[in-house]
Amino acid sequence: MPNWLLPEHIADVLPSEARKIEELRRQMLDNFRLYGYELVMPPLLEYVESLMTGAGQDTELRTFKLVDQISGRMLGLRADMTTQVARIDAHLLNRNSVTRLCYAGSVLHTRPSGLHTTREPLQIGAEIYGHAGLEADAEIQELALASLAMAGFTDVRLDLSHVGVLRAILAEDPAAAKDEAALYLLLRAKDVPGLETQTAGYAPAIRAALLALPSLYGDVEVLKRARDVLPDLPGIAKALAELAALAASAIGRADVAIDLADLRGYQYESGAMFALYVPGLPNAVARGGRYDHVGEAFGRARPATGFSMDLRELARLLPTAERKHSIRAPWGNAPELKEKIAELRKAGEVVIQSLPGHSNEQDEFECDRALVLDDSGSNWILKNLG
Amino acid sequence: MPNWLLPEHIADVLPSEARKIEELRRQMLDNFRLYGYELVMPPLLEYVESLMTGAGQDTELRTFKLVDQISGRMLGLRADMTTQVARIDAHLLNRNSVTRLCYAGSVLHTRPSGLHTTREPLQIGAEIYGHAGLEADAEIQELALASLAMAGFTDVRLDLSHVGVLRAILAEDPAAAKDEAALYLLLRAKDVPGLETQTAGYAPAIRAALLALPSLYGDVEVLKRARDVLPDLPGIAKALAELAALAASAIGRADVAIDLADLRGYQYESGAMFALYVPGLPNAVARGGRYDHVGEAFGRARPATGFSMDLRELARLLPTAERKHSIRAPWGNAPELKEKIAELRKAGEVVIQSLPGHSNEQDEFECDRALVLDDSGSNWILKNLG
Repeated sequence: MPNWLLPEHIADVLPSEARKIEELRRQMLDNFRLYGYELVMPPLLEYVESLMTGAGQDTELRTFKLVDQISGRMLGLRADMTTQVARIDAHLLNRNSVTRLCYAGSVLHTRPSGLHTTREPLQIGAEIYGHAGLEADAEIQELALASLAMAGFTDVRLDLSHVGVLRAILAEDPAAAKDEAALYLLLRAKDVPGLETQTAGYAPAIRAALLALPSLYGDVEVLKRARDVLPDLPGIAKALAELAALAASAIGRADVAIDLADLRGYQYESGAMFALYVPGLPNAVARGGRYDHVGEAFGRARPATGFSMDLRELARLLPTAERKHSIRAPWGNAPELKEKIAELRKAGEVVIQSLPGHSNEQDEFECDRALVLDDSGSNWILKNLG
Repeated sequence: MPNWLLPEHIADVLPSEARKIEELRRQMLDNFRLYGYELVMPPLLEYVESLMTGAGQDTELRTFKLVDQISGRMLGLRADMTTQVARIDAHLLNRNSVTRLCYAGSVLHTRPSGLHTTREPLQIGAEIYGHAGLEADAEIQELALASLAMAGFTDVRLDLSHVGVLRAILAEDPAAAKDEAALYLLLRAKDVPGLETQTAGYAPAIRAALLALPSLYGDVEVLKRARDVLPDLPGIAKALAELAALAASAIGRADVAIDLADLRGYQYESGAMFALYVPGLPNAVARGGRYDHVGEAFGRARPATGFSMDLRELARLLPTAERKHSIRAPWGNAPELKEKIAELRKAGEVVIQSLPGHSNEQDEFECDRALVLDDSGSNWILKNLG
């Protein structure tokens, strides 16, 4: 096998794509900052126990493990940055006030989540800690939508769900509560026959509620239908009211859909959850929601809500940036030439000095001008090319 | 052991430090671009054989290894990005012209290189492929110096060395050539007694030359002394002439020192090498040089020269950025309020909406103004805060 071959689902990012990703990364981080989010950089490696704290079983399976030569303990390569940032909020910053944090960095997965998915996503996200109210969820949702709008995605679908609905149903029937994991999988797959079998012995009202969930999918009208169909429990009423408020705050920014059986992240989340979709990609480009119990696992209970997305996947959907117009300059050590080049670069021009014997047109740059000596042979001037 | 503890020599980067690193990263990548360098993003994980191709034994020991669940083969976490970028030049871009590439990303080391050194440096660098002449080395050296100047380091020392000197000496005496690895270590440690023992059986001229190297250290005058002391070999003459030219091109930008026994990178480099030092840090902040044979190992011989540095270490030496003046706004869904906030953010202002029940002053931001309703109760205006 040739030594330049890369592992499956691992790829280099070449210049035109890298530039798109870098620009998107900067735009988004700058926008997070305008909302008051502070940048943090958690490490790529941690003790496995820390990375798994508060994370679901999915994360455990997706995490590469290796041995620390210093401590002899097991390390994990982060597969997700959310719990890392929760740890920073809980232990390093240790503030009592509301804390807004953002991050951008590579994560690694032992196996790809799909046929064409990378094992090295570039995760970017933003989180609010210390506020349990829906206002924080609304801000996070707005920020996620604003980030996509800024990247040029105008046709966005917002899918809303809420773990409170299933939690409230399960709390009513110990038999159902015991089957939580199985029910979660059946609901996620919208497997109605499977649900019918699984729920055969439950209290009739609970069974009816669980069987109704897969059909509670569609536009915001679904929330009304859910109020009629689902049992009249405080947890359900609260969840539906929260979803109605979040749906209302997204009007004009996205097509809103409700999907009460979409419980991806259920093990991890604790309130409203959302997923954003754009044309051309079947998977969500961003996911977010409330996960109040994660900080608790680090010894300090802090309400938390946030979202994250994969910059690589997002950038792939964007058009290739145009080649940058630039200036070709000759090689030389003459101070006047060096000064002129420095001046042009200071003004933001890309100036590429040709190395002797090479005309080095670069892929990303199109030399439309050349720096040449004028007829007097003493002044450097720009000449238009072809 | 508490689950929020990090492994030794691994750390979170908190907001004020993260902001410095991010700004430095952008400044440097933007400056690389102004010189015509195209950004690439090699992966964090590769097959071990690929990562080790053309890399020295140091790299092998510093590389974390793990098993790929898909192929069953051994993967390595990159400990250095230079060979990755050489691979991209050789195989993916596959150009015949001069190619300028740059990169920025985390690398991981199994063990720290020093007592206070991180195991997760943030490596940034630039490389020129396809030009064997000294002009490329001069451009790389200039770019490294310009990068430090831009970051605010005015008092920089440039240490120059050249692997050609030792190579030319060893080529003259098969006995010495056999001891290359041992001689390299003794020279690097400037261990003169050790060298005396090691070289006892060599040809007298070769022995004298090897024993002279550790003393060939100092300002550019050392090059003259080297011409007198070292044997008159074409390889040595060429190396010394190259060092003289590189030293001359750095005048006015750095204090130049020559150290002919500083052969760090000898196994990997093939020509002139440099290291940059700034006050306050005993280790070099940047290292660079020519390494023509690396592309060869990927099946395509391409001359190469480049430099890299650790952004984290560099940022640590810079003063903490001042807190950003920002605007506190109340929470609310009123369209006028939302519009006003959007307008301020568009103008580059950080606007932090207070979540109900919290006054969320953030560490990185200092709210010196507040968005409030005027006396008429219908216009949002900015009010200065104490």
